[in-house]
Amino acid sequence: MTETVVASASKEAVIGFERPFCVIGERINPTGRKKLAAEMVAGNFEMVKSDAIAQFEAGASILDVNAGVTAVDPNETEPPLMRKTIEIVQSVSDLPLCIDSSVPAALAAGLEVAGGRPLVNSVTGEEDRLEVILPLVAKYDVPVVAISNDETGISEDPDVRFEVAKKIVERAMDHGIKPNDVVVDPLVMPIGAMGTAGQQVFKLCRRLREELKVNTTCGASNISFGMPNRRVLTGHFLAMAASHGMTSAIMNPLHDEDMHAIFAANVLNGTDANCRQWTKKFREPIATATTAGSPESDVDARRRAREERRRRRG
Amino acid sequence: MTETVVASASKEAVIGFERPFCVIGERINPTGRKKLAAEMVAGNFEMVKSDAIAQFEAGASILDVNAGVTAVDPNETEPPLMRKTIEIVQSVSDLPLCIDSSVPAALAAGLEVAGGRPLVNSVTGEEDRLEVILPLVAKYDVPVVAISNDETGISEDPDVRFEVAKKIVERAMDHGIKPNDVVVDPLVMPIGAMGTAGQQVFKLCRRLREELKVNTTCGASNISFGMPNRRVLTGHFLAMAASHGMTSAIMNPLHDEDMHAIFAANVLNGTDANCRQWTKKFREPIATATTAGSPESDVDARRRAREERRRRRG
Repeated sequence: MTETVVASASKEAVIGFERPFCVIGERINPTGRKKLAAEMVAGNFEMVKSDAIAQFEAGASILDVNAGVTAVDPNETEPPLMRKTIEIVQSVSDLPLCIDSSVPAALAAGLEVAGGRPLVNSVTGEEDRLEVILPLVAKYDVPVVAISNDETGISEDPDVRFEVAKKIVERAMDHGIKPNDVVVDPLVMPIGAMGTAGQQVFKLCRRLREELKVNTTCGASNISFGMPNRRVLTGHFLAMAASHGMTSAIMNPLHDEDMHAIFAANVLNGTDANCRQWTKKFREPIATATTAGSPESDVDARRRAREERRRRRG
Repeated sequence: MTETVVASASKEAVIGFERPFCVIGERINPTGRKKLAAEMVAGNFEMVKSDAIAQFEAGASILDVNAGVTAVDPNETEPPLMRKTIEIVQSVSDLPLCIDSSVPAALAAGLEVAGGRPLVNSVTGEEDRLEVILPLVAKYDVPVVAISNDETGISEDPDVRFEVAKKIVERAMDHGIKPNDVVVDPLVMPIGAMGTAGQQVFKLCRRLREELKVNTTCGASNISFGMPNRRVLTGHFLAMAASHGMTSAIMNPLHDEDMHAIFAANVLNGTDANCRQWTKKFREPIATATTAGSPESDVDARRRAREERRRRRG
């Protein structure tokens, strides 16, 4: 019954074995998004704001915030930009945050301004990361994502990755951080490059849950990198991983394929009591790819409903 | 490495732990299909023929054939109709067959005319079924589907269902039938009626594979009975069950949601070597529900291509 409590100043999101799968929205991340990066560098946060709102409306429970706009001198640029981005996100959304950076000073800057109990993303099994990030996590009494690689890189052997995760949990305990505040990322490799990537994650999820008794997360879309029809593959990966015990993912809630997979996984794993969320979401017949006509996505439908409400009020 | 060889006179389909998930097409079954039932009673097999061809084209590896047109006097009507239906199906398709009936005389009639090594569907743990059907299976040296219920009905306890499956496998061995020729159906209950139905199947698939070392199958669409957006739920159930070791299902290959789930499961479970089938199927970008415009289903697209080829030839 492991539970990880992540919170903003006013709202809680619980990642847990018996809870609905926790959706961590990935969109506020300039990596690979040139337009967003350019806007953020220029001090324009309109896209950050609209991404925050859209992800909340699409069903995200936590928002990941990454301010890595440049590989040049990130130690200088990233901490103030992380601070500013978090302030902006908190001004338009009350969702709990996941502070995402490989720059320890940016994590520290984020922790100074984030309300509640944000999730720190991430620490690895590398000595220098453990020694810098765990004290920060302990100081703020917040949960942390533990990525199962170390100085030797990412092992292709899931048992080695399990041992790295175990080491991080033990080191966290040395700092007074409880295991239920460590959310392990078993590392999702692209299936196109490593044919066993799916099976590795499924096995690791089961072991991490049964033996280490920790929550888990991952960057879900990695699995389908380079493949055609990525969204369908990522969606099925999410549902399959959830059925092996994965309890959260950093993913795109604006993709219906991903969200439908999460809703289905909750029904089939018994974390959607009486199928209430599924029935609520799909009670009205929705158009699907095999229905004639011009279907609209859930996100489109919600946008249209919102505009319609505004029109009526106005 | 358990393998169950199912075959027609000229074609083999292997259900196996290391094989791509085996799709058993469910369409040739008058249960709940009034029009098909009426046609079959009237000696019209046009829909049977077109269902056989369409399921082959959609990717089925085995065709289920059920001739249960009426609950009135099935012992009289079903054996000759099963014989006739199988002859018709074999005249238009060389796929291996799954002879599906609760009437032992219909199974016997089907076995007399089916070429190769059809799959017999099914025997249960009930004494009278075991004593009638296993000798038939042994006589023809064919594989059999074993449904995990007995005189006491269907247990809600997966451990009891496992014991029933184990008993059937042992009894089959008494008749000289090898365990790899017994394909266990762990029984899929509607998730709307039993919230643990998914988890039960996942657990049973793992135990049946690891402990009994047998192949598995199920009537997949049962899981979503009575639920909205059934196809998406059934699709995710299939992928999740496959990741826990299920190796085949009696399902509708004409539903893209089901087939996409199977293709994704094969990629993620490592039974689609080098993602070759996935890449072949999806190399051309396909329209999805979240794409603007009017997407067509794979089945529609294939039908259109077929008509186009005919037009050019004509």
